[in-house]
Amino acid sequence: MPKPNAVVSALPSTIPFVAPERMERESGRPFAARLGANESSFGPSPRAIEAMQRTARQDVWKYCDPEAFDLTAALARHLGIRPAEIVVGAGIDNLLGLTVRIFSEPGDAIVTSLGAYPTFNYHVNGYGRRLVTVPYRNDRADLDALAETVRRENASIVYLANPDNPMGTWHDAEAIESFAASLPGETLLLLDEAYGEMAPPSALPPLDTGRNNIVRARTFSKAYGLAGLRVGYLVGAEPICAQYHKVRDHFGVNIMAQSAALAALSDCEWLASVLAKVASARERIASIAKESGLAALPSAANFVTIDCGQDGDFAMGVLKALDARSVFIRKPMAPGLDRCIRVSCGLQQELDLFETALPEALAAAGRSRR
Amino acid sequence: MPKPNAVVSALPSTIPFVAPERMERESGRPFAARLGANESSFGPSPRAIEAMQRTARQDVWKYCDPEAFDLTAALARHLGIRPAEIVVGAGIDNLLGLTVRIFSEPGDAIVTSLGAYPTFNYHVNGYGRRLVTVPYRNDRADLDALAETVRRENASIVYLANPDNPMGTWHDAEAIESFAASLPGETLLLLDEAYGEMAPPSALPPLDTGRNNIVRARTFSKAYGLAGLRVGYLVGAEPICAQYHKVRDHFGVNIMAQSAALAALSDCEWLASVLAKVASARERIASIAKESGLAALPSAANFVTIDCGQDGDFAMGVLKALDARSVFIRKPMAPGLDRCIRVSCGLQQELDLFETALPEALAAAGRSRR
Repeated sequence: MPKPNAVVSALPSTIPFVAPERMERESGRPFAARLGANESSFGPSPRAIEAMQRTARQDVWKYCDPEAFDLTAALARHLGIRPAEIVVGAGIDNLLGLTVRIFSEPGDAIVTSLGAYPTFNYHVNGYGRRLVTVPYRNDRADLDALAETVRRENASIVYLANPDNPMGTWHDAEAIESFAASLPGETLLLLDEAYGEMAPPSALPPLDTGRNNIVRARTFSKAYGLAGLRVGYLVGAEPICAQYHKVRDHFGVNIMAQSAALAALSDCEWLASVLAKVASARERIASIAKESGLAALPSAANFVTIDCGQDGDFAMGVLKALDARSVFIRKPMAPGLDRCIRVSCGLQQELDLFETALPEALAAAGRSRR
Repeated sequence: MPKPNAVVSALPSTIPFVAPERMERESGRPFAARLGANESSFGPSPRAIEAMQRTARQDVWKYCDPEAFDLTAALARHLGIRPAEIVVGAGIDNLLGLTVRIFSEPGDAIVTSLGAYPTFNYHVNGYGRRLVTVPYRNDRADLDALAETVRRENASIVYLANPDNPMGTWHDAEAIESFAASLPGETLLLLDEAYGEMAPPSALPPLDTGRNNIVRARTFSKAYGLAGLRVGYLVGAEPICAQYHKVRDHFGVNIMAQSAALAALSDCEWLASVLAKVASARERIASIAKESGLAALPSAANFVTIDCGQDGDFAMGVLKALDARSVFIRKPMAPGLDRCIRVSCGLQQELDLFETALPEALAAAGRSRR
């Protein structure tokens, strides 16, 4: 048999996430509330739906534009930057992999928070880089410790999600800017703003594409409700962005994604209505938690992380008991964070189901008496 | 600035293909006949269109199934193999890149035909492997010379498209099987059958997934008319396929692609009708060539390669003159092949335009008197 590459050969067979579809296949029972993947149950803009329907009828037989010209131009206008400062990709996942491939060498240290986005870690391992993790502090990314670790390890890349996933917490723009300024010039800050639209504006530093050591990742999967299509983008200085075009899959952003994202971007009213629904669902999830005597963490994302008040095993028991009640959620897994469960903002009827199931699940998981 | 990876840093800024969309933007003039990208102007099955419309309305906000379970199962049934012998990817382009990444080491020799699919070469260079090319012989891939070069260079991978692109020629199944058998056991044969559905059955060896040193690539972009969606698959032995799952983008095959491909695969009648249209368009293109005194090469694909009877400059002049007449085609570029132009099968009205434009283009390109 042909020998696999040494890096690949050494890798385990893993999947960063077990999908709800697999869980449904295995249980033989569909979820009644899909509150685990931080998708937008509110769906995409009707304009995006119309664009997809038109593309299905007219253009889907054509290869997509490898430059995503129209979408990139619209994003540039929307963000007030130049098209050369944007790289459109097949979702942030794809752009994370490319960033690891492009801005580090095999064996390089790459720093992230312990318990942060698993797909980033998957790519770090997949390219044979060395993952170095830093524990959260008070349920937030520990910026000082991240910067210190970067310096100690001479890291090529540091990954920071702001707002954070899985905790929903965030740092304000000043803290992010100080953090960026404290990094060595040769370290790339990969700032994942997948949840940026849902965050208070004070959490997002102004777009300064004059800085060479930051790329910011954004997506149409969350607020724009197009997770299934796979489309996200990076914003960065032109010389940084230029590297991606040397190795990316040029036809990798499909024609539906390009046309739907373009239409979605134009519909500010829909976005505003979704953001209002997200804000209201966050409040409702927090209040459901409170009814059961649990504390919800503050969230700047489209999910709420709930402290179940005991250890990781208990929180896992709650998750499983919710699963048994057809409510799909996820939970943080790292020590310290694992006492929590993570519940995505969803439709009224999904939250109704969660409201009914949570007290039962807490009891089923053997909640300690208080 | 953070230092790009040494391999990436050394790469030029290239695009494997300049897209027709860019040509249209630059000329300010849309093409009236899109006959250059070997797409299917005949479009996808109405069932696929319906599936996309339904997905747009109902499911597009959900992440796609990272296992492409339903599509993989349907392909397995269709092909009479096991799901573990299939890897679904975001088009063959994506799977070519993964194959290079997985089955070779930096610096390894990888063999292909000189003038074959440029995106494969792009990935070989992109991963810092060493591209070794073998000239065509009589407008076909030179199997003996490819095998000899593999042995001489101790190549990890050899790429062969059958039917061939850009020439449209093919080898029969016996020749492909002898070629595979003549390769060292540690060399992977990457057999690109993107045009397989359009080929005579005698060109396709039986699927023998017991062989560890072959992967075969197929796509929904050609006969199935779904180029814009990006969905293709590999067929190979289970231990070969297993490697891909260690590093691929797990959410990389979008939900539209999965649902449309599944529907398209079920519609044998539509496929048969497209194949009939392709066969008839091939004949028509050959006959248009003949009217102008040019010879069409035999084709087992959804395009016809035409020998313009002079040198590469002349054929390029013909291409440009067709372009000026709003007819988009492409042409082979390698020495010896570059005397040809390549015309995709298209709709009646597109071929009408080509029929009118070709004699004018030959004259404009300064055709020699005979």
